Amino acid sequence: MFLIYTISMAKSNKLIYLDYSASVLPNPSSIHLLGVEAKRKLQNARKEISAILKCRPEEIIFTSGGTESNNLAIQGVVLAKAFPLPLGKRVAFSKPHIITTNIEHPSVLETFKMLQKRKLAEISIIPVEKNGIVDPKKIKKAIKKNTVLVSVMYANNEIGTIQPIREIAKEIRHYNKNNRPCLFHTDAVQAVNYLDLNVEKLGVDLLSLSGAKIEGAGRVGILYKKKTVSLSPIFGGGDQEMSLRPGTENLPEILKFSKALKLIEKNKEPASTRTSLGGKENKRLTKLRDYFFKKLQKMSKTGLDKNMSKPVFDTGVIINGDLQNRLPNNVNITFPKIPSDLLVIELSAKGIMASSKSACKSSGKEGSYVIQAINPELDKEIGGVRFSLGKKTTKADIDYTVKALSQVLQKLKKWYY
Amino acid sequence: MFLIYTISMAKSNKLIYLDYSASVLPNPSSIHLLGVEAKRKLQNARKEISAILKCRPEEIIFTSGGTESNNLAIQGVVLAKAFPLPLGKRVAFSKPHIITTNIEHPSVLETFKMLQKRKLAEISIIPVEKNGIVDPKKIKKAIKKNTVLVSVMYANNEIGTIQPIREIAKEIRHYNKNNRPCLFHTDAVQAVNYLDLNVEKLGVDLLSLSGAKIEGAGRVGILYKKKTVSLSPIFGGGDQEMSLRPGTENLPEILKFSKALKLIEKNKEPASTRTSLGGKENKRLTKLRDYFFKKLQKMSKTGLDKNMSKPVFDTGVIINGDLQNRLPNNVNITFPKIPSDLLVIELSAKGIMASSKSACKSSGKEGSYVIQAINPELDKEIGGVRFSLGKKTTKADIDYTVKALSQVLQKLKKWYY
Repeated sequence: MFLIYTISMAKSNKLIYLDYSASVLPNPSSIHLLGVEAKRKLQNARKEISAILKCRPEEIIFTSGGTESNNLAIQGVVLAKAFPLPLGKRVAFSKPHIITTNIEHPSVLETFKMLQKRKLAEISIIPVEKNGIVDPKKIKKAIKKNTVLVSVMYANNEIGTIQPIREIAKEIRHYNKNNRPCLFHTDAVQAVNYLDLNVEKLGVDLLSLSGAKIEGAGRVGILYKKKTVSLSPIFGGGDQEMSLRPGTENLPEILKFSKALKLIEKNKEPASTRTSLGGKENKRLTKLRDYFFKKLQKMSKTGLDKNMSKPVFDTGVIINGDLQNRLPNNVNITFPKIPSDLLVIELSAKGIMASSKSACKSSGKEGSYVIQAINPELDKEIGGVRFSLGKKTTKADIDYTVKALSQVLQKLKKWYY
Repeated sequence: MFLIYTISMAKSNKLIYLDYSASVLPNPSSIHLLGVEAKRKLQNARKEISAILKCRPEEIIFTSGGTESNNLAIQGVVLAKAFPLPLGKRVAFSKPHIITTNIEHPSVLETFKMLQKRKLAEISIIPVEKNGIVDPKKIKKAIKKNTVLVSVMYANNEIGTIQPIREIAKEIRHYNKNNRPCLFHTDAVQAVNYLDLNVEKLGVDLLSLSGAKIEGAGRVGILYKKKTVSLSPIFGGGDQEMSLRPGTENLPEILKFSKALKLIEKNKEPASTRTSLGGKENKRLTKLRDYFFKKLQKMSKTGLDKNMSKPVFDTGVIINGDLQNRLPNNVNITFPKIPSDLLVIELSAKGIMASSKSACKSSGKEGSYVIQAINPELDKEIGGVRFSLGKKTTKADIDYTVKALSQVLQKLKKWYY
């Protein structure tokens, strides 16, 4: 029927928009021609994104961002167990158990704690190893009869460590052979620019992405949800997004997202693996990162001050997180006695925009729980300084940054050492 | 400290952005200079919006849209009762009771039903009168000892009827004198362009807005939350937005929102009341709407076909909703035997973009529950056609539309009458 009317539309030269209340922009849920056109664009974006993730279009749910995607994945699984649709009655089922690590993004970790507080789930938080990487065997060991979900991030937002997603998936699959359906979610928000997003190869049932971390992508989130997974929506409302996320879809930003995702995917070719990153820009960043590490280690030893005979700092610089299994653009360091917040502000005064911890949590007073997790001996407020490189970053920027850092440290050491 | 560094920043010509992982755009939660600048802009937008709503800046919470704002208001109040912060323990409190009407937007009505299904709340849904307006006395009568929230929309999205918000607020205030704190929420998403948004005059504790209905506003939502109201967040995550809405704020869209809101507020002067709308454009639209009504009534009587001796339809046209207490841009009609979906598609083929029901619910198969609520005698699938006018709408558009409608009806009547 739509097709017939699309043809007859061509005959009408008039266009009178009398649907201002639906949305000032055409709305994919409207059934008039502009609505149908908007829906076609929306479905096309969904298809393009699914082609990159190697899944079906209807397995892509659009959300408002990474925080919502992570919440929908985790709360959605737990709520579906507690209140299965369509009857909405509580069923006889022991309290769902969910597993994550101690260095997840707040939108995962705090959601776990919230579900525990609300008595909707029993939680296990597995500590990562000293290098910021979780041991898949420890995940396996934590799985119980009532475990319904494991959520492990693909790459960490502070220290950039890449988690062994495929290995964890393998452990879960092995467990599931005994007919115990434990799902696997990964927060891929930080991984998106550099790592392989093939959900089949990764072996995940749920995967979160955010436009905020992709150049030109627009502020929307994506949740990949395998077709067989039961999820309850968090919001009540309309039946958009396979009835899992009500609210008019943010079409302009979604279109920007799919365009930007296609672009970064092209830059990754040939596809990257956990240890070897594909793509020219990935290789350039990896080189730059390793150069940054070398300069930092040298500075720590020599103080970069040729007049000094011994290192500036007794304790040296700590490079946080595994040196190899990490994002190509991530450098994260700690000077054991100097609060990282102070370093960031001092560097900012020299024109260098770095970060002292997850920006998503930075208005709080405590330091970084991620740095704390891998350096338990540090004072809580010390934290780490994260430098995250991007396409405009050059070798000269690194030189300038290390020099500036050295000057800042010279200034601060009299107070802190 | 920030001030000092802002001054020294001026001395540095360098700008090296090494915070790509926080966000490809500067992030208001970052503590470096660009983050501080982003935060300043964010707080400024918050201040400007609060000046329009006549509240404090910290009473404005940014969300992803109207659906989220409504959910945060309703779920937030109920969850705060069930799981009060910071202890998160269930307290001895009879199940919270919440009240709404039967013509609310799905993001309110479905949220009520969801909370009932999940056994978190007891709900009352008050039917509106034949004219699509709720009787404040019926709200008052429904308030019980355990009532924690009344949610009534400011203006309806389908039929444009304006609810007596101040009168309902008065009833609730009167009730609350006996030390029973019942909160009042209004979904003002459809009212934003035309009605007074002064929360103090309205007497509401919570008010939702959406950028999707404001020209040039960007896709964000607002929830006004009176400072004294306890709300629990729906999402787990960072501590943005007074710890009520985690996730990096969508700064570019928020800035567009505050700019657009200021603009429409200017257009409303002098301020509108429930019965008399202020502003030139409001008056123009009201005139246009009433002209549309007159033409429709005339068409219904004469068929607009001078060769016909009697009306085209035995039953005539039904104009849905009160003729006076309605948005200046809303016309909603029903032809008792013709499915509105069909009319919308036929009109669309003639270049007229109208809507057959709330676009937020239009992918479902059933008709409009709003039209059903005020016309219980109609078949369920009939629904209504909504024409919502805007700044580009002219008298000639109305003439063309009524003529086109007449032609469509001539064509369809042989099948339906």
